[in-house]
Amino acid sequence: MNNLNGYDIEDLSVGMSATFSKTITEADIVLFAGVSGDTNAIHINEEYAATTAFKGRIAHGFLSASVISAAVANRLPGPGAIYMDQHLKFLAPVRPGDTVHATVKVREVYAERGRVVLETTCTVKGVLVIDGEALVKVDSSARRAIREAAAAESPAAAAAAMAVAAA
Amino acid sequence: MNNLNGYDIEDLSVGMSATFSKTITEADIVLFAGVSGDTNAIHINEEYAATTAFKGRIAHGFLSASVISAAVANRLPGPGAIYMDQHLKFLAPVRPGDTVHATVKVREVYAERGRVVLETTCTVKGVLVIDGEALVKVDSSARRAIREAAAAESPAAAAAAMAVAAA
Repeated sequence: MNNLNGYDIEDLSVGMSATFSKTITEADIVLFAGVSGDTNAIHINEEYAATTAFKGRIAHGFLSASVISAAVANRLPGPGAIYMDQHLKFLAPVRPGDTVHATVKVREVYAERGRVVLETTCTVKGVLVIDGEALVKVDSSARRAIREAAAAESPAAAAAAMAVAAA
Repeated sequence: MNNLNGYDIEDLSVGMSATFSKTITEADIVLFAGVSGDTNAIHINEEYAATTAFKGRIAHGFLSASVISAAVANRLPGPGAIYMDQHLKFLAPVRPGDTVHATVKVREVYAERGRVVLETTCTVKGVLVIDGEALVKVDSSARRAIREAAAAESPAAAAAAMAVAAA
């Protein structure tokens, strides 16, 4: 674990999973329209949305998908993780008041490069609404020890840390 | 065009492109942390962020990517378009105050199914920060005419609309 309580690459193994859940409220949709600039009528105009196949407003796909970002940042790998790549399939609408459960599950660990592939899914009342995959970069406790030793300008400590990293 | 000024599938051709731009402010980052639940220290803790390779806070990747959603919803194909799939590669950080220019360009048009593949890129000061591809569903003016005729319960009008759609 790093000092923010996030997992290091050494802590991760295939099959580990975690979930972060968030209710998507009316306020979230209005604020998301503001921060993104996406004012699609299907999200902000109930009279129009009622005439579509959705029969009412739906949340922005990227808003629901953002709960995956929270699962990655807050749970697995957790604080310190950096997003590199995300694929999203939007399968079903999310409506104001729906609670999105974003689950991330470790599919592959590339220890050498400090990268992890995550299966990323969002469900609402048990229905899959978003499916996808992410590639995330995480730190290494061994490499951090080397950096810290080097920062302390101690050749002996740096050499010891290097030996741990190579083991 | 539909009645919201969005393109129908019949209006789209390979190579068409459009850009939507938005400055990512401090306020956007704070609000995005709230709507997504993503409170990664790299986005909201300047003291921590200053110790990382980024040397300061960066915007959530999904926040910058959301400007693509606005380009799709507001410009091309425009109002009425529905997101089906998005792939994102996060290539460089976006900082508070940066203006993100999201450009969408038509790569393929599947007229029969009412689907369009878009190349989706975000740049900041000319540097590519996000690269990717989207699949979006759009309405068809021909199919809309059929629906409207059927809704009017006029067999003659529906048949005429069907002939136009088949042409």
